[in-house]
Amino acid sequence: MKNKRIFVLGSGSFSGSHFVDHALSLDAEVMGTNRSPESSSLFLPYLNNSKRSRFKFIQAHLNQDLDLIVNKILEFQPNYIVDFAGQGMVAQSWQNPELWFETNVVSKVKLHDQLKDSRFLEAYLRFSTPEVYGNTNGLIDESAPLNPSTPYATSHAAIDMSLFSFHRRYGFPMILTRATNVYGVGQQLYRIIPKAFLSAKKSKTMTLDGGGTSERNFIAIQDVNRALATLLQNKNALGQAFHLSGSEYVSIRSLVEKIAEITQVPFAKFVTVGAERPGKDQNYSISSTKIQKLTGWTPEVTLQTGLQEVGTWIDQNLSLLENYSWEYQHKI
Amino acid sequence: MKNKRIFVLGSGSFSGSHFVDHALSLDAEVMGTNRSPESSSLFLPYLNNSKRSRFKFIQAHLNQDLDLIVNKILEFQPNYIVDFAGQGMVAQSWQNPELWFETNVVSKVKLHDQLKDSRFLEAYLRFSTPEVYGNTNGLIDESAPLNPSTPYATSHAAIDMSLFSFHRRYGFPMILTRATNVYGVGQQLYRIIPKAFLSAKKSKTMTLDGGGTSERNFIAIQDVNRALATLLQNKNALGQAFHLSGSEYVSIRSLVEKIAEITQVPFAKFVTVGAERPGKDQNYSISSTKIQKLTGWTPEVTLQTGLQEVGTWIDQNLSLLENYSWEYQHKI
Repeated sequence: MKNKRIFVLGSGSFSGSHFVDHALSLDAEVMGTNRSPESSSLFLPYLNNSKRSRFKFIQAHLNQDLDLIVNKILEFQPNYIVDFAGQGMVAQSWQNPELWFETNVVSKVKLHDQLKDSRFLEAYLRFSTPEVYGNTNGLIDESAPLNPSTPYATSHAAIDMSLFSFHRRYGFPMILTRATNVYGVGQQLYRIIPKAFLSAKKSKTMTLDGGGTSERNFIAIQDVNRALATLLQNKNALGQAFHLSGSEYVSIRSLVEKIAEITQVPFAKFVTVGAERPGKDQNYSISSTKIQKLTGWTPEVTLQTGLQEVGTWIDQNLSLLENYSWEYQHKI
Repeated sequence: MKNKRIFVLGSGSFSGSHFVDHALSLDAEVMGTNRSPESSSLFLPYLNNSKRSRFKFIQAHLNQDLDLIVNKILEFQPNYIVDFAGQGMVAQSWQNPELWFETNVVSKVKLHDQLKDSRFLEAYLRFSTPEVYGNTNGLIDESAPLNPSTPYATSHAAIDMSLFSFHRRYGFPMILTRATNVYGVGQQLYRIIPKAFLSAKKSKTMTLDGGGTSERNFIAIQDVNRALATLLQNKNALGQAFHLSGSEYVSIRSLVEKIAEITQVPFAKFVTVGAERPGKDQNYSISSTKIQKLTGWTPEVTLQTGLQEVGTWIDQNLSLLENYSWEYQHKI
């Protein structure tokens, strides 16, 4: 990635900010946009990167400032665009579903339409989600039919389909990744792993939706970063979707039990059981054989190691972190 | 359908206006909205219906007047909503793809979200399209994966997926139909069948994209109307998609040859061969076994009979019809 120009949409997101950090470490030149201003280095690892001067940040909103974003891209002429932008959160998307479609579909289609003839662009990688498959049985590969269960997931499925059609029509150099639950240092505190650590450390009670019986796969952000960098540089990845999954599946309950062990706080001291969340998919398991075959990539960070890193981050920054909200706050 | 209240979105469309006509004939009370004012009875068969007084028309734009539409629906308390509204045209959707997503996805999601708790509503039937499947091989059923090739088709696939998610989440009483090429009296003149009749009659040259080799299935509007009325009244249809296809497949070339025979104008006198249209799907063939099994519906109008009816309509109204444009004109 040395001296490659990389434009990151959603550079303030958890995955986006880690990818900026990773790209800087590989000597890329990076420009990023995000709707919110840059937050603390607690949540933006690239702010502590020794090559930070090779990153330029622009605050811009995908819906309101699309022309600015397009102009910056046309000026910067990136080799790669990596797209983490969009409305997140699955359950919340039932509240105002149209907002998810406005941002994740309409604005994105406008962007792709304006970039479709950009000859500088070697790859446009969109960070999609396995939620597009909805409820599934067994291990699924990238050819599984799209059957999303929520407005969030439907908006992702729609723009994924749109990108494939742009690839077939214009040769638009798109790549999709669909990763399982990504986690790591700096993740938003309302996410299950940091929330469990903080709950244990601060003796606050957290609720496990549906008792935490649903099985999940977690993948460390470092493994995701390596996968994205590899795919961007592989011409044979263009026009395709790739699953990214970690090696271990775990129920949410046993994940929290692991965190109880790491923090040495008894599980029962900080956990209660709540109702199932509506519209949340159970038990999706996705195979990442395809990227392994194409590039040799495999996940390297074990769940135990990854959790310990998050635990250390929480420990070292506890007095700062406890000032932040642990609840999701919707931004438009 | 006697005394049922039916709300028709897109009552000025070809299929919508025929459905209004059919519903009036079955003694329903009908309210319809369309973005354009009512046009001539040449194109709106219900204007000549003897029960026309039981139809109320409201001019309203799905994007700009959504609140008005919702208010009218809440006042009217329809048993059934039949949704033909939206941006049409496949090839044109590449010009401003975002317009297709704004209308066909964002506005529709807003509408569904506002209707999701309406207990008066027994069925919401959306007139979707087999274009959602993209390029397919062989005869496909309703479980085929969605793989749309154009912004038009992607917008339809997106709102179809969204409706399924509303059904699973809220029990929203949705039904989808995906009909092959619908034709009949009153169809827009830029469509292949009326255009071929007019070209033959007026000795104007028409172009067959790609030589007209692609195979198509045509279904008569009367057969579609019977299918929709049957599905609306069948509780077992809720939450499902149904294909509607006519009994015959024909290449566009041999369709035009049939029209040459009916009009007794030699094929070579009004036809030339042009380039393939970009992003247009070839050869989709869909099975309508599912609706046949559930309801006993089968298509009854042969292509020959249906074409002759259109020919008679063109003959009887030639002096009026030749004043209308045969080209598609995009309205926002």
